[in-house]
Amino acid sequence: MKHIKSKYEILRQKIYIVIYGSGTIAGKTFDLLLLAVILLSVLLIMMQSVVRYDKLHHDFFVVSEWIITVFFTLEYILRIISNKKPLNYIFSFYGFVDLLSLLPMYLSFFFPGSEALGVIRSLRLLRLFAILDLIPVLNQSSHIKESLRASANKIVVFVYFILVMSVILGTIMFVIEGRHNGFTNIPNSIYWCIVTMTTVGYGDIAPITPIGKAIASFIMIMGYGIIAVPTGIVTAELSRNRRTKNVKNNCPRCKTFIYNEFANYCYNCGEKFIDGEVKIDE
Amino acid sequence: MKHIKSKYEILRQKIYIVIYGSGTIAGKTFDLLLLAVILLSVLLIMMQSVVRYDKLHHDFFVVSEWIITVFFTLEYILRIISNKKPLNYIFSFYGFVDLLSLLPMYLSFFFPGSEALGVIRSLRLLRLFAILDLIPVLNQSSHIKESLRASANKIVVFVYFILVMSVILGTIMFVIEGRHNGFTNIPNSIYWCIVTMTTVGYGDIAPITPIGKAIASFIMIMGYGIIAVPTGIVTAELSRNRRTKNVKNNCPRCKTFIYNEFANYCYNCGEKFIDGEVKIDE
Amino acid sequence: MKHIKSKYEILRQKIYIVIYGSGTIAGKTFDLLLLAVILLSVLLIMMQSVVRYDKLHHDFFVVSEWIITVFFTLEYILRIISNKKPLNYIFSFYGFVDLLSLLPMYLSFFFPGSEALGVIRSLRLLRLFAILDLIPVLNQSSHIKESLRASANKIVVFVYFILVMSVILGTIMFVIEGRHNGFTNIPNSIYWCIVTMTTVGYGDIAPITPIGKAIASFIMIMGYGIIAVPTGIVTAELSRNRRTKNVKNNCPRCKTFIYNEFANYCYNCGEKFIDGEVKIDE
Amino acid sequence: MKHIKSKYEILRQKIYIVIYGSGTIAGKTFDLLLLAVILLSVLLIMMQSVVRYDKLHHDFFVVSEWIITVFFTLEYILRIISNKKPLNYIFSFYGFVDLLSLLPMYLSFFFPGSEALGVIRSLRLLRLFAILDLIPVLNQSSHIKESLRASANKIVVFVYFILVMSVILGTIMFVIEGRHNGFTNIPNSIYWCIVTMTTVGYGDIAPITPIGKAIASFIMIMGYGIIAVPTGIVTAELSRNRRTKNVKNNCPRCKTFIYNEFANYCYNCGEKFIDGEVKIDE
Repeated sequence: MKHIKSKYEILRQKIYIVIYGSGTIAGKTFDLLLLAVILLSVLLIMMQSVVRYDKLHHDFFVVSEWIITVFFTLEYILRIISNKKPLNYIFSFYGFVDLLSLLPMYLSFFFPGSEALGVIRSLRLLRLFAILDLIPVLNQSSHIKESLRASANKIVVFVYFILVMSVILGTIMFVIEGRHNGFTNIPNSIYWCIVTMTTVGYGDIAPITPIGKAIASFIMIMGYGIIAVPTGIVTAELSRNRRTKNVKNNCPRCKTFIYNEFANYCYNCGEKFIDGEVKIDE
Repeated sequence: MKHIKSKYEILRQKIYIVIYGSGTIAGKTFDLLLLAVILLSVLLIMMQSVVRYDKLHHDFFVVSEWIITVFFTLEYILRIISNKKPLNYIFSFYGFVDLLSLLPMYLSFFFPGSEALGVIRSLRLLRLFAILDLIPVLNQSSHIKESLRASANKIVVFVYFILVMSVILGTIMFVIEGRHNGFTNIPNSIYWCIVTMTTVGYGDIAPITPIGKAIASFIMIMGYGIIAVPTGIVTAELSRNRRTKNVKNNCPRCKTFIYNEFANYCYNCGEKFIDGEVKIDE
Repeated sequence: MKHIKSKYEILRQKIYIVIYGSGTIAGKTFDLLLLAVILLSVLLIMMQSVVRYDKLHHDFFVVSEWIITVFFTLEYILRIISNKKPLNYIFSFYGFVDLLSLLPMYLSFFFPGSEALGVIRSLRLLRLFAILDLIPVLNQSSHIKESLRASANKIVVFVYFILVMSVILGTIMFVIEGRHNGFTNIPNSIYWCIVTMTTVGYGDIAPITPIGKAIASFIMIMGYGIIAVPTGIVTAELSRNRRTKNVKNNCPRCKTFIYNEFANYCYNCGEKFIDGEVKIDE
Repeated sequence: MKHIKSKYEILRQKIYIVIYGSGTIAGKTFDLLLLAVILLSVLLIMMQSVVRYDKLHHDFFVVSEWIITVFFTLEYILRIISNKKPLNYIFSFYGFVDLLSLLPMYLSFFFPGSEALGVIRSLRLLRLFAILDLIPVLNQSSHIKESLRASANKIVVFVYFILVMSVILGTIMFVIEGRHNGFTNIPNSIYWCIVTMTTVGYGDIAPITPIGKAIASFIMIMGYGIIAVPTGIVTAELSRNRRTKNVKNNCPRCKTFIYNEFANYCYNCGEKFIDGEVKIDE
């Protein structure tokens, strides 16, 4: 009995290395194969959505989509089985994405058309960076992520402010334009206001009355100034992070961060620096 | 007589604490209830503006809007009565907003349709930050506000310049396009010019003549460069504020600039700082 | 004879002070009156361009426009006569603007419709800053102007690059979309390309073929990245200028700019600074 | 035999100096002539694409285009022959551009219409900077290029992220809008998503359902925040480059950081610098 368990355990480890690892040749091959299948399946879903192609090759699309779904389902089960801590995987970001990639096809029994949502598996393509050892690139990305996280609070305040302004300005436009020209109700007017403030400007809804145009001009110039705010926030954050990185030097005694390259004493513990001891670590 | 006055005074204080404070459970409950009613009333106004919903539930919308207005009116009166310095409240930002939130419904007797302007009460939702103790977030917001205030002068100059340019370029386009394609008069052409320079670009008015298109291209590229100016102003201001905060403090002995507000020792002469001696001088 | 000349000279000086100066009450009154007339005349031209108003009050518009033109012509002549160095005025920026403001009305004898170009006199409104003693605001503006001038070279290179890219990408789209959907000829396609790269996006011309849409998507994402360049240039320039301004301190001997606030010696002439002698002059 | 070879060699060198050099009068004249011909040929291709002009002067356009093509072909051959290392030229950027400028006309035998692609020779106009000795301007451009290259990794990650988001959000919109209003298939919906996120906003495809509009609003606000990222990256990079240039040099005696490259004395210890001793270490 123990012998069988052991054999099973060895198999489980082998599968784990192939599926999760990308250090061995088998693991890397599996990863690249997986990426190819994901890309292929996303392209198939896209093509199937084009009526012309769907009419010609409907059966081909359905069959291949089912084959891919079964393949991903097996992969998902193997990932759970081969993992010693399956819950860690299931509740991770990729665990959710992998599950979400399967569901649309099964859901299409109940809600026809939902199979198109299978494109959510394109999120799995983000694994590309890990597979191709693009760690420097990933670090760059994490640098941006840090800056965005640091600016998150400010951006929440900013978005809240934009929404409140859109509700008020949208309603004013609704009252002025009087249900004409697409301003048929307040939600539509708010939608127009967001389209305008973000400088997207579809033109499906546009003011016609002179007062409406004057207010729209005001909103545009305001929006033009407002676009400066998130840009300023992120830029200041990115510059700060970079600056911090460039002057990364620590006290040899207390390991405190030293901001100033001309420092003679540590500002934290008073340690006297020998000349050249604190260098810019770039 | 004095006894009665005292009882009234106690009641006034209790109301004050509930309405203005958010420290007690009653105060917090009242605040959250208020937020919910505001949100509900804004949603109701939005829904009523949709013809389909209004036809089905017209009476429901009118009745509920009146109930909410009466509720807000009572709250406004209580806020004035319970406050020892009612004028401070009445002429504050929220005092104006609270009053403006009531008026549209009463004004709708005289100007039908103006009840939609009740959405102005969505400005009251800005109290959310105070209620939920989101003080760090609020500080972030005030940081942005400071930067915007500091850049206000420059942005005024900038907007003035844009308006003058729009008047001249708009008129040139009016002369070139000759009353066609939406350039029916100079105000419309100026409106088009603002739509173009801010990169909104509805397309409801667009040049057709070759010369008009050439000038439009020039305006676009110019506008593309001009968008850099407010962004640059705000970014420089945000970066400066951040730097200023970290920096403006000197060693009491050697007068050296201390970069770090948490410093215990001067990095130049090794002077030990008494706690709080080196403050941020803002 | 000399007496008459002297009287004429006194009159000339009086006129000069009233017209050019804004220090005396008469001078300031004249300036504000002038601004009001300019604003009025620009508004009149705008209103006349609206067919409905022109039909009702055509004669009023023509007469008032002639009165204003005669007034400005007289003012222009007085400015030349009263100035000791009339050529300095004539060939200055405002000299050109003042002349250009007069011409359209006289040119309208030969080219009907050109009177609308009289709005060019709105450029005279820029004098507002000088008149209202808005010198701090003007300084702000000159700060921006400096930064823009410093970035001018880079922006010229940038615009040149955008134009070359637009020519090539526009032609490619012309070949692909094949004279349909607004891509009727290469200049139109180039116009579309500029509209797209600057993110204006009217939608009067839009790709229909799948390949055209793919290339358009590429152009958009590229344009999205390119918008970063002028913004980055101007922001870096504005930050630099500001930084320079904040550390504005000069050597007391050779008047050289000292970059570093911790300097003990002038880097230019070797002058030893007494402690605190070089301060940040903000 | 040797004599002939030598004469040929002298001719080769003369041609080389005229074609490649811009130091002699002949070389400069040739360069300017070449630029004029390129500009002329690009304008001719543009004009020929306008149906009206082509009908009137079809033969003129064809003949002149052939003359220009033959001229460029001869120039290309001379460039190869006169160069000692012809492969260096052939595989350089301008080598490819010069070849690509010739091909469209010859290809038009097989693929009618491809002659319009001759505008690719407008890339040759970039030689303008070298010819006009605009070296400072070119340096500016190379400064930008460096910054863009340094940010390339981050921008790749960023574009990858935008594409993945566009695929998913586009598909969601396709499912919601249900083949109506231009969302006829997934590729079209993705195209719409890119048009929206980049704030171009043609309006040829626009959501109609309330949920679709809500999601579109979310995408717009997100895109509005996202535009901050490339701008922030490039700005931070441009600021850093500038700072680095002004800064990286130390006093040979006290090793202090020297901010100013024109410094004659160390600001810290007063050391006199021998000319050129403190260099910018780039």
